[in-house]
Amino acid sequence: MRIRDAEADDWPAIWAFAQPIIAAGATYPWPRDTPEAWTRSFWMDKEPPGATLVAEIDDQVAGTVEIHPNHPGQGSHVANAGFMVDPAFRRRGVGRALGEAAIARAAADGFLAMQFNAVVETNTQAVGLWHSLGFTTLAIVPEGFRHPVHGLVGMHIMHRKLGS
Amino acid sequence: MRIRDAEADDWPAIWAFAQPIIAAGATYPWPRDTPEAWTRSFWMDKEPPGATLVAEIDDQVAGTVEIHPNHPGQGSHVANAGFMVDPAFRRRGVGRALGEAAIARAAADGFLAMQFNAVVETNTQAVGLWHSLGFTTLAIVPEGFRHPVHGLVGMHIMHRKLGS
Repeated sequence: MRIRDAEADDWPAIWAFAQPIIAAGATYPWPRDTPEAWTRSFWMDKEPPGATLVAEIDDQVAGTVEIHPNHPGQGSHVANAGFMVDPAFRRRGVGRALGEAAIARAAADGFLAMQFNAVVETNTQAVGLWHSLGFTTLAIVPEGFRHPVHGLVGMHIMHRKLGS
Repeated sequence: MRIRDAEADDWPAIWAFAQPIIAAGATYPWPRDTPEAWTRSFWMDKEPPGATLVAEIDDQVAGTVEIHPNHPGQGSHVANAGFMVDPAFRRRGVGRALGEAAIARAAADGFLAMQFNAVVETNTQAVGLWHSLGFTTLAIVPEGFRHPVHGLVGMHIMHRKLGS
């Protein structure tokens, strides 16, 4: 597996697995019909210290992470990040590798911490992964997410300091 | 005091106190030089169930609140709101009146809860006000806000269910 900065040419491969993930509505609090143009702009057009990385396996894009400031201005020293992994590449450590790369990249780019605002509690694989990478659950927003199968479920707000 | 929906004509009065509040950088995690055009669009151009209200005292705009979904899509049943009060009208209950009005309006418009992501812990008046209006602090994001005087301080994430 290789982690590298995303290039514009990567977008079709990313959208091929991102679109079904968004349409499923189970892990991202985005409209299930979020348009490709909006998503491409949000995911790919980053101003530093924002960044977009991809994980490659056998020259294929297996997953991606986008990093951006969680708040502007006086809150911009805390990063937020979004992750998506192609289901065809599950159980090969792509999420973990992207998580580790995002932590390292955000720290290198001067962010002091990373915060997630909306880790859906039924996404137990993600919750477990982030805890194993040093994130703590600051709080669970009660009934913060309307899951298409499970109804109203909680969302973890997670946090991890970066650097020493 | 009268609380009513904001109208486009209210903007100059709002900006007159909003600009110094933003420039002070002590309560909003926005760039201190946030442009008027961006602010006006964010504050005034709301798609329902988003809304903007003003508090009037003696036919003057004394404060304002904007309401919007805290997340899109599967998180859009939780409201977020931003409040600003003209310092010339402090200690007259404007913040409390706007808070109560925002809670009522968000509930009437179908939001199931209200969440604040960034109540700066040194803004003790706001923290106390929201607690007195039924919000609980879900968590304090450690060092989430770079205060121009106090340095890195915490930000309360607050939450309140709406309706019965």
